[in-house]
Order: sequence, then structure tokens, then C-alpha cells
Amino acid sequence: MSVQTLLLDFSLDPARLGDENGQKTVFNQLETVLKDYIPNLILAAEIKVDGGSLKLLTGKKGSTVAVRLFDRGLVTVNIEYYKEDSEEPLINFKSARVLENQLKKYMTVIKSQAYPPLKRCLFGRYYPTSDERLLEYDIDGVLFDEQSPFQRVQIVHSKTLGNMLVLDDLQNISEADLVYTETLMKRGKENYEGKEIVILGGGDGALLYELLKEKPKFVWMLEIDETVMNACNKHLRSICGDVLEQRKGHNYEIIVEDCMLTVNKFIKEGKKVDYIFGDLTDIPISESACGELWEFMITILQASFKILKQNGKFMTHGNGATSPESLELYEQELTKLKPPVKFSKSRAFVPSFLEDWIFYQISFKTTDNGDA
Amino acid sequence: MSVQTLLLDFSLDPARLGDENGQKTVFNQLETVLKDYIPNLILAAEIKVDGGSLKLLTGKKGSTVAVRLFDRGLVTVNIEYYKEDSEEPLINFKSARVLENQLKKYMTVIKSQAYPPLKRCLFGRYYPTSDERLLEYDIDGVLFDEQSPFQRVQIVHSKTLGNMLVLDDLQNISEADLVYTETLMKRGKENYEGKEIVILGGGDGALLYELLKEKPKFVWMLEIDETVMNACNKHLRSICGDVLEQRKGHNYEIIVEDCMLTVNKFIKEGKKVDYIFGDLTDIPISESACGELWEFMITILQASFKILKQNGKFMTHGNGATSPESLELYEQELTKLKPPVKFSKSRAFVPSFLEDWIFYQISFKTTDNGDA
Repeated sequence: MSVQTLLLDFSLDPARLGDENGQKTVFNQLETVLKDYIPNLILAAEIKVDGGSLKLLTGKKGSTVAVRLFDRGLVTVNIEYYKEDSEEPLINFKSARVLENQLKKYMTVIKSQAYPPLKRCLFGRYYPTSDERLLEYDIDGVLFDEQSPFQRVQIVHSKTLGNMLVLDDLQNISEADLVYTETLMKRGKENYEGKEIVILGGGDGALLYELLKEKPKFVWMLEIDETVMNACNKHLRSICGDVLEQRKGHNYEIIVEDCMLTVNKFIKEGKKVDYIFGDLTDIPISESACGELWEFMITILQASFKILKQNGKFMTHGNGATSPESLELYEQELTKLKPPVKFSKSRAFVPSFLEDWIFYQISFKTTDNGDA
Repeated sequence: MSVQTLLLDFSLDPARLGDENGQKTVFNQLETVLKDYIPNLILAAEIKVDGGSLKLLTGKKGSTVAVRLFDRGLVTVNIEYYKEDSEEPLINFKSARVLENQLKKYMTVIKSQAYPPLKRCLFGRYYPTSDERLLEYDIDGVLFDEQSPFQRVQIVHSKTLGNMLVLDDLQNISEADLVYTETLMKRGKENYEGKEIVILGGGDGALLYELLKEKPKFVWMLEIDETVMNACNKHLRSICGDVLEQRKGHNYEIIVEDCMLTVNKFIKEGKKVDYIFGDLTDIPISESACGELWEFMITILQASFKILKQNGKFMTHGNGATSPESLELYEQELTKLKPPVKFSKSRAFVPSFLEDWIFYQISFKTTDNGDA
């Protein structure tokens, strides 16, 4: 079952919506065509709104149609009704496009758009991009859905992407995203053989799984959320193998607690590693580098540098390439760090994000062998 | 300027919406929280609908809020208002998510979803996938927009994909789609050197451009729509080079007319070629292989086979991998063809489609050297 919301837009010559008569004519034209699509359509309410008017119609099966006329020459039509899974839609995208074309001719519009119907009140099918665009995924089932002490953890199935981890209603990683992990670790360009590595976060296990193929000396993975690991161990085996099952091997260990505890322990011991992966939260999208998430990120970075060898690297994911302001802020923060650091970037189209993603490789500016 | 439509969904225990008192309580809870986000909110209309009720509120700046309560336990909230480009949104996605979380706690909901605001009545930002899902692209400008005798031809600019050809409001090819052309032609697996090739359609010039790099003997490109070629020649140079500029070279010719004219001429002359590319319309999505588009496609296939060498190949794009029914219908049609044919398939994720696409390679079943 779902609520179907079908949207249609029209732009008209504003002169046609400038007075009540004009609005009436346009509305009548709309109503005439809509009646062919929605049986038993009647006017239920009519409201004058600042800058326009709104008419509300009701029709078959409890369907409602809101027609909004904006003085500025815009018309929006929102059709909404309840649909059982077994029922045929009242209007599908194909008939919506036919309706759009009919109205276009009938009303002499400048521009128009019909949208594929939104299927609402279902399990998540809609996720945003980093720049807050709306994407409808081909999700056909939910395999896991639990609230952990830290976040809502879901595994959903996409026809295109396979199983996908969703954290707090944001798409995280799918079975189609090997390129994400390979770009994060710069496979083929970095040499991990015999190296000591710390992963901050990385609960889906994909990074650990891929790093272990590169024969490192030892990997510590510091993940706080056991629920994420349980979900991925069961439903994302193709990207994490059995590394989350065993939690410990001859060359790796997963420590389930706040990553700062181990980082601080390493600082105290004077332990230094070759690579640190920041696989925690994304760079927050905000207008200034303020707030809890930014502080958290900078604290983590500062502490990490204390356990990084002088020629070591801090590797992390940034944000969508469509959010240059956010990336710019992050880079500004990097330039303020002490000891001073330099960075390079890599970029990849991540299938489950449906956008290009930016990754950072950060290292110390000085190249002598003294400690930072 | 645009109309902003912000959608919110909630699922509740149906018992709570079962009677008028329950509906009133839920509505009051909603109204209390919404008032913090939309100033001057007042109730403008209240309508009993089959299977639920609808309340309409109006607020600041001519904003309207439609709250629909469905007896089945679903609540939809649609907020709509007019926004100048220079104005701040009344509610953005971030505040919508905060609002969602507030309502979630206040109303004890089972499930909820906030959607990134839809920006309506703009130039196209929203395009459907092959299975009619809604995708919002990061389009920030329109470079070309003309109605040709055959279709509406647009070139839009996407921040992620570069320039993109849009035909009749459907995304067609972008500057990020080399993989589309390479999968269509099976680059590296087919040898085009010294071969004679016919392209049916292909107005964007990308296929011709890539084929010419493979040193063919001659390529005939048969495209009906000059407007498409003019648009791509100007705005998609990175994918078509200068092949559309010259229209004719020592080893290729673009013939601007209905492709069937040249195909029929070749049939009459007894001319046969090594490869034919079907780069016309997609396989129609329909429940049966009927209708104009299917007939057109089969007519083209039948005629093409008459100008294809016995060991030649017909290469074409199919449809989205999420539309298996449509692909299945196409394959059934192929098995009915005379002379009998066999086919193989390839698959690629096409960036501008944001989905996997299926491509077909069709050849005659008999392998002797006699004519078909």
C-alpha cells in the first residue's frame, strides 16, 4: 500500500492569470481535461491565497486534486490518492504525460512537466544526493531495520545496486561500490604491504576486507556500532567477506568502542602507524566550519596526526563533487592544522550515490624523518 | 523563480486515525509543530474525503499546507509556496528533517520520511529512469531548446555529467557517457578496421566519432533530425568531435533523411555491409509487443537484415536492466524473425541514465557464406 502523489507543472503567460476571469478560464480548462482521467471530480473548496488561488477537487477513491494558480504565471497540479499494491494506479506516468500534452495544447502553455508518481509512505525509496537533490532508487525490499544506540541501521535491496547499507536514512555503501573503497585507498598507487594501518569507523567492513588483500602487517579497525557490523556481516558479504564474522585474525583486529579510546591509548604508548583511514561521517554540509560535526572531525584529525608516522598518510572521503563550498571549507580547515599538512585529491563516480565523490590523501608537509 | 513543494510522510498506528477524535488529535499535534516553521498558519478549509480527511492551511508568503489523514494510518503533508531565486527557502531539506524528527517524537510515528524540496516550474531538472523512477539532476542551465519537426531538442548542463542531450524530455546522452558508446560498439571486442558500417539514427555523432577512430572502410550515418545534429555539433563537441561539422569525410557520410530511404536504396542495389547500428528509439516499455513503436522497430530490423552480410552484425541498445519485461518482449520478437537470428547481450552502468543499460548484438543463425 502507498499514497500516490502525481505532480504536474505548467508555465503560462502571466497576463492570463492576472485577474479572476483569467484564472477562472484556466481553471475550467484544467478541470475539463482532468475529468477524463479522474472520475466523479467535484469542486470541494476554493481559497484565495496571497499571490494566487487554490482550488481543491475530490474524485473517485478518495482522490484529491489541488490546483494552485500563481499570479506569476505558474500552475501546479497535485493529485493524491491511496493505492493498495494490488490496485492499478488511477494515473501512471504514461497517462500523466498524455494528460500533460493534452493540457499543453488546450491551455497554450509555455512550459510543462509531468513527474513520475511519488510512491509515499513506503519503506525508503527516496534518498538525497550530497547537494540535496531527490533520487528515487529501485528498492524492492528491506532486509534489516534496527535502531542502534547510535543510528538507524537498514539494509535495503536495490535491483540495480544489490544490497545497500542505509544509516539514518542516508545511502552509505552498496554491493556495486567497489570503486568507492578502491578510490578511498588508492588501490594500485599506494603500497600497503607490511604496513600498519588504523581504520577509524569502517563498520561495513569493505575497507578492511580490501586492505587485507594487500598483505598489510596489521590493521586495527575501530568501530563503535556493533549493529552496523552485524547487519553488513549478514547482508553485505560480497563486499566484506568474513572479516566481520571473525572480528580478529592474525593480521587484524576490530575494536568495538569509540575510536578515540584506542587512538588515545596509541598516543600514550607512542605507537605510530603508516596509514590512518577516516571512514567516519561525511564532511558536514554547512555554510561555516562550525558545529558539533566539524569540531568532532577536526578533533579526530588532530589526534590521528599524533599516531601517524612522519611519512604516513591520512586517507579519507570528502563529499559530493556537487558541493564545492563544503569541500572548500574542509580544505581551509586543513590549511589551519598544526603540524602543517599537504593534501591530494581523487574522484570517482560512486554508483550508490549516483554522483561523483571526492577523496583526500593528507600528509605532513615536512619530509625529514623527525617526529611531527 | 520556482514553486517549492516540500513533502513529508508519516505512518501511524491506524487505530489513532480511526475516528474523528483521533484524527483531530493527530492534526492538532501536526499543526502545533508546523506553526514553528511556517508563520501565520491558519486553517482555510477542511474536507471529508472517502477514506480520510484533508485540512488545508495557509501561511506566510502565500504558502499552503495540505495535511491529508488516511484512515489506513498514513499521513501526508504537502507544503507549497512560490520562491524567487534570490529568496531564502521557507523550509529547506535540513529544517524539513528537523521538523520530521520533531513530529516523529511528538506524534509517536512508526515510519516517516522527509523529501528534499521539489523545485517546480523550472527548466527540466527531473527525468525518469526506464522503470519510471524520479531522478533530480544537477542541471544548472539550458544551452539549447528548439522544437524540431520530429521532437523537442534540448541541451542542458549538469554539474556532474557536463552537457546533456534531452529529446522530448528524456535524457539521451551526456559528456560523461563514453561507456555507452563503447558498450554499444563493444570496443576492443569487435574489429571495425576496413569494414562497411551503417548507423541508423545516431544524431548525437558520438558513435560515428568513436567508430572512425577504428579505421573503418566507410560509415553511412542516416539521421533524420538536423536540429539534433546542430545542437550536438555546438554543445557536445567532446563526444562527437567535428564529425557533425563536416557531414562528409573520405570514409563517412551523414545522410539527413528518413533512414529507410537509404536502406531501401541499398536493398535495391544489392549492397551489403558488415555492421548496422540501431541507434534510434529505445525499446518501448509496454505490456505487449504491439503499437506503432514496436512495428517501426521490427520493420527496421527486417529491412536491416536485407543489407547485412551473412557474417555481419546488428548492434543496438535495448533498455534499462530494471525493465526485464520489456527486454523479454524484445527477445521474443527476435526469436520470431526470419531469417532466424541469434543474439548476445552486454551491460553497462550509463552515468547520465543513472542505471544499468542492456545492449544487443544480433547475427544470423546460419554460419555458411550464402546470402540470407
